[in-house]
Amino acid sequence: MKIIQLQTHVFTEKEKNLRQLEAYMEKIAVQKADLVTLGEMFNCPYKTEEFPVYAEPQGGPTWQALSEIAKKYQVYLSAGTIPERDAVGNIYNTAYVFDRSGRQIARHRKAHLFDVQIEGGQNFRESATLSAGDACTVFDTEFGKIGLCICFDLRFPELSRKMVLEGAKLILVPAAFNMTTGPAHWELLFRCRAVDNQCYLVGTSVARDPKAEYVAWGHTLLVSPWGDVIGQMQEEEGYLITEIDLQRVEKVRRELPLLSARRTDLYSL
Amino acid sequence: MKIIQLQTHVFTEKEKNLRQLEAYMEKIAVQKADLVTLGEMFNCPYKTEEFPVYAEPQGGPTWQALSEIAKKYQVYLSAGTIPERDAVGNIYNTAYVFDRSGRQIARHRKAHLFDVQIEGGQNFRESATLSAGDACTVFDTEFGKIGLCICFDLRFPELSRKMVLEGAKLILVPAAFNMTTGPAHWELLFRCRAVDNQCYLVGTSVARDPKAEYVAWGHTLLVSPWGDVIGQMQEEEGYLITEIDLQRVEKVRRELPLLSARRTDLYSL
Repeated sequence: MKIIQLQTHVFTEKEKNLRQLEAYMEKIAVQKADLVTLGEMFNCPYKTEEFPVYAEPQGGPTWQALSEIAKKYQVYLSAGTIPERDAVGNIYNTAYVFDRSGRQIARHRKAHLFDVQIEGGQNFRESATLSAGDACTVFDTEFGKIGLCICFDLRFPELSRKMVLEGAKLILVPAAFNMTTGPAHWELLFRCRAVDNQCYLVGTSVARDPKAEYVAWGHTLLVSPWGDVIGQMQEEEGYLITEIDLQRVEKVRRELPLLSARRTDLYSL
Repeated sequence: MKIIQLQTHVFTEKEKNLRQLEAYMEKIAVQKADLVTLGEMFNCPYKTEEFPVYAEPQGGPTWQALSEIAKKYQVYLSAGTIPERDAVGNIYNTAYVFDRSGRQIARHRKAHLFDVQIEGGQNFRESATLSAGDACTVFDTEFGKIGLCICFDLRFPELSRKMVLEGAKLILVPAAFNMTTGPAHWELLFRCRAVDNQCYLVGTSVARDPKAEYVAWGHTLLVSPWGDVIGQMQEEEGYLITEIDLQRVEKVRRELPLLSARRTDLYSL
């Protein structure tokens, strides 16, 4: 399974982000990737007040463009996240996944909103304009079951565990950690979720823009079920190519039987 | 709160381990520690066939000696673990904690037995001679609530989470990772449990003995609620002195409100 993670620049003009994506897809086409991923809010400045402005319904123009790209290049496309407006006007931080035919096969609305206030560090309040999703998201592919969550969702070990108990062998995490939590916790959380759940973790960030109000950490990475960082970028835009073998999940689970050794008489999810 | 973690050598003669402990207590007495900790199976070779041979009932000679040491030096003593034999002959990997008056205030029997078979790495099968405990252990002290689990128990995020939801601000983990899992996962797991649960993690190993059948990783460490390694030893015997402020738990939980942001409508323990 060949994965290409795109760590893209976020332009203020929404369409420019799609043109950038098209250019990257053209450039990497020769690689014959199975799965292409994008970062959180890849087409919208990460500002609470901009989410409603950039929001589109499911099936809107950006969704259409993403579906067409997946079909054109015949890849699974984990299309980062974009602000979604539902029928009654709620705004969500939403991740769509399309299959090789351009069909939407998964949608995850960020379930844990990022409301933090760190002394001398990052402040943010997503809940000012966003509503939270209320699902744990796992979907089928030709490679097996894949889980999907968004950035702050990864902070909660229960959600990753739930995805894995529902069959996920790989977890996709479009994300954008910042300059406070990035250096402190980004790699740590991805590695530990992988080790605890003995599955692959695929974290895709947008590129760092020092002029943005919210400065992303970048560092798109891919972690093995043993917790090794198989590949990790720096902060600049670009892409990361990784080939993985999902069979390794079974091997690690056989050697160190963590999932079957859970004491479900002592605790359960 | 001043913590001294003793990373001791494991002697084959059981009593020699207690004499070693006495000598360390004498040496560190001037430090006026509040809490002294020991590693897993600090008085018994880490071999399945030796556990029944070294086992004693609760209240047995080793227990008595540990209680007296806590009283004599007026410290909380997290007395690592020793093999315990119960009334019907079951053997457990058991951690006792004594207060400053020598009274037992906690007992945790290892709940997840270490049965692994890593290709080209560590093989072990605790369940050959040990029975598993069936409790989540949290106890009160003058500093607040403290959780207690043993080595492989730490692999299971549910148990740490449960201790913290029951009020633990610090988790004690007598342990002995090995030369396969130690370099791969020891620091990672302690840091991530601390970050996820926003509490202190205190991991105490026995010292490495290259001639032992099971070679311990050592690396006794103490991790802050933000995931920083405040102190960490190498593999040799000795001790680690750390002063911590449990108020920091509240500060981190206020700034990054992870525990209150849990989506208990989506999952619960």
